[in-house]
Amino acid sequence: MIYLDNAATTIHKPECVINAVAAAMRSLGNSGRGTHSSSLESSRSIFEAREKISEFFGCPRVENTVFTCNSTEALNIAINGAIDEGAHVISTCLEHNSVLRPLYRLEKERNVKLDFVAADKKGCIDYDSFKTLLRPETKAIVCTHASNLTGNMLDIERIGRFAREKELLFIVDASQTAGVIPIDMKKMNIDILCFTGHKGMMGPQGTGGMCIGEAVEIKPFKVGGTGVQSYNKMQPCQLPVSLEAGTLNGHGIAGLSAAVDYINSVTSEAIHAHEDALMKRFCEAISDLEEVKIYGDFTQKRCAIVSLNIADCDSGQISDILAMDYDIATRSGAHCAPLMHEALGTVEQGAVRFSFSWSNTEEECDTAAEAVRDICRRLR
Amino acid sequence: MIYLDNAATTIHKPECVINAVAAAMRSLGNSGRGTHSSSLESSRSIFEAREKISEFFGCPRVENTVFTCNSTEALNIAINGAIDEGAHVISTCLEHNSVLRPLYRLEKERNVKLDFVAADKKGCIDYDSFKTLLRPETKAIVCTHASNLTGNMLDIERIGRFAREKELLFIVDASQTAGVIPIDMKKMNIDILCFTGHKGMMGPQGTGGMCIGEAVEIKPFKVGGTGVQSYNKMQPCQLPVSLEAGTLNGHGIAGLSAAVDYINSVTSEAIHAHEDALMKRFCEAISDLEEVKIYGDFTQKRCAIVSLNIADCDSGQISDILAMDYDIATRSGAHCAPLMHEALGTVEQGAVRFSFSWSNTEEECDTAAEAVRDICRRLR
Repeated sequence: MIYLDNAATTIHKPECVINAVAAAMRSLGNSGRGTHSSSLESSRSIFEAREKISEFFGCPRVENTVFTCNSTEALNIAINGAIDEGAHVISTCLEHNSVLRPLYRLEKERNVKLDFVAADKKGCIDYDSFKTLLRPETKAIVCTHASNLTGNMLDIERIGRFAREKELLFIVDASQTAGVIPIDMKKMNIDILCFTGHKGMMGPQGTGGMCIGEAVEIKPFKVGGTGVQSYNKMQPCQLPVSLEAGTLNGHGIAGLSAAVDYINSVTSEAIHAHEDALMKRFCEAISDLEEVKIYGDFTQKRCAIVSLNIADCDSGQISDILAMDYDIATRSGAHCAPLMHEALGTVEQGAVRFSFSWSNTEEECDTAAEAVRDICRRLR
Repeated sequence: MIYLDNAATTIHKPECVINAVAAAMRSLGNSGRGTHSSSLESSRSIFEAREKISEFFGCPRVENTVFTCNSTEALNIAINGAIDEGAHVISTCLEHNSVLRPLYRLEKERNVKLDFVAADKKGCIDYDSFKTLLRPETKAIVCTHASNLTGNMLDIERIGRFAREKELLFIVDASQTAGVIPIDMKKMNIDILCFTGHKGMMGPQGTGGMCIGEAVEIKPFKVGGTGVQSYNKMQPCQLPVSLEAGTLNGHGIAGLSAAVDYINSVTSEAIHAHEDALMKRFCEAISDLEEVKIYGDFTQKRCAIVSLNIADCDSGQISDILAMDYDIATRSGAHCAPLMHEALGTVEQGAVRFSFSWSNTEEECDTAAEAVRDICRRLR
C-alpha cells in the first residue's frame, strides 16, 4: 500500500518510537504516585519528554507543557478553560471541528460571540480581517497553523503580533504542523499551542499536549487524582497537574519523547523540505490533467497536502478507486472542516486529500500521480 | 525490584499486549477517517476491542462502550454529562478523588447536593445508609467497586438493586476491580461503568473507557472531529462518537484488546484467586507483628490490597525504606482518597499500600513480609 493519508495519522513511525513504547511497557510505573524506582523512572521519563517538547516549541517553562491524549483534548481544555462568559472570539474559516465545535459550544452555553475570518476560493485569508472584526470585547484569537484540507498555512507570527498588540489571548491549533514546521511560541506570541503526537511528530496515537505561555490562566477541564494535594476538594491550581488529572499515558509519552529526539536528529526543516518536494512533484505530474481541480494556494509556504477533485466525481468514489484499484490510501469527504468546504465550494463533492510524509518516496509520489492520470483516462 | 504497587499500575504487561501495541504502531491508520485498508484495519481493530469489552462487562450494545484515556476521564464524562443542575447524589467515603473532585465541581457549579455514605474504622459501610440518605430529589449513586486504599469491595449488586428500585442512575468506578473481579452491568444494574486499562486489565497506559447502559443519556464532554456529520455544529449525539471526539488511541486500544484476550484465556477468577492467596499469605506472615496495623475488612471478598502502618512512623518513610533498603515498590501517603483516610484516622500518617497482581509470586510475597518484619525489628 502507498500511504498518502499522513494528515490523518502518520502510519510509519520511526523504529526508535516503537521501541521506546515497548520498553516503557516493560518498566514504567505510575508517574507521581510513588517513590520507588519504577514510579520515579516514569516521572523522570515524563519530565524529560516535557523538557524536550518545551524546548521544541519554545514553551517558557517545562511545567507549562501539559500532556493530553490528542490535540482535540488540548483544544477543548484551552477553549473551555481560557475563554470566559460573553467574550468575543475571532477564528477563521480554515478551522477543523476540533476548534469549531468547542467554540460553538461556548457560543451556546456562555454567550460567547464568534466571528470567522473568511477564506477565498483558494482557501486564503485577508489578514486585515482580524482588524476589521476586532471589537472592544474581543478577548481571543483561535486559529489553525495550517488547514487540514488545503494545506495552506496561516502566518501565525503575523497574527500573533496583532494578538499581542491588542492584548488578545492567542490559541493555535498546530495539529497539521507540529513536527514538520518549526514553531517558536515566544517569537510567534502564541499563548496556548495545541498539538497532537501521532501526525507530523510521528509519535504514538493517544499522545498530544499543549504548551502554555507565561501568565495564561486555564481552568481545569478534567478533575481528579493528581498524586498531590489529596485533601484539596478542588483540582490543584499549579501546572501541569491542574490540567492532567488521572494517570498519564506514560507508555505513549515515552514514544513521543523518542519521536522528538528523532525529529531533532533529522530536523523539522529536512522533513518539511522532503515532504514539500514530494508534494510539488505530485502536483507537477498531474498539472496537465484538465479534469483535475487542485485546491489551495501553492505560491506560499504550505503543508504537504494536495486536495483535489476529478471532474464532478464524488470524492469518496475517487478515494475508493484509488484504494481498491491502485492500493493508494487517501482521504475523501468533508475532513471535519465545514467552513473550508463552504469557501472552496466543495460541500457536496468533498475532496480527495493526498498528504505526504517523511517516509514517502518519489516513486510512491509518481505512482500516485500516474493513478490519478489513469483514473482521468478511464473517465473520459 | 519486587513490584507491589499494582493498584497504581500493573508494571508487568503480558507479552501479547506489548506485541499488539508494537504491531498496531506498524500498521494502523486513523480509525473512521478513511476507507483505505489501514484506516479500515484501525476501525476493525477498535470495533473488535469494543465488542470484547462489551462482552467482558455485559454492556448491552457494542456502541455503548466508549474509549477514554483512563478511568478519570470516564468518570468526568459520566459525572459531568449525566448529572443535572440541582440533583442530589449519594456517594461514599471510599471514593477516590477521580469521583470526589468531579462531584465537588458539580456541587459548586450546578448546585448539586452531595451525601457520602460513611465508612467505619475498618473502611466498611452500612448499606442501609443509602436508604437513610435518599431524598425525593436524589438522582444518582456514584460509587467505587473497591477502595484503592483498603481494598474493601462494595456490594455493587446490592447497591445496584437499590438504585434500580428507586430509579436512580448508578455510576460505578471499577478502577480497582476491572479485569480481576467479574462485573456484569446488567446483573448489577450498573448504568455507567468506568474502567481503566492499565491496572487489573494489564493493558497499556492511556487506555480506559466506559460501558453505558440502555437509555442512559450523557452530554458530550470533549467535542470536535468525529469523522461523521462534519456539517453539524454540535457533537453528533449517537454513541460512541458523541463521547469520543478526536483521534482515538488505536495503538493503545489494540493492546487493551489483547489484554482482554489474555484475561479471558486465564480467567478473571483465576487472577483474583492468585492475587487473593498472595494477599492472605502476606497478611498471615506479618500477623504477629504488634507494631503493624492493617486497615480494611478481611472477612469479605476484597481486592488484593494490604494497607498498613508500622507504629506511628510516617508512611512515606516506611515506603522509602522498603524501596531503598529492600528494593520493594509500595505506595505511601494519601492515595487520593481523603474521606477514606478520615474514616481510618490516617490523615496525618497516610498508609503504606502493598498491592498484588497476577505476576507476583509467593516468594516475592514472603520477601516483602520479611522486610516488614525486619523494619519492625530495626525500630524496636
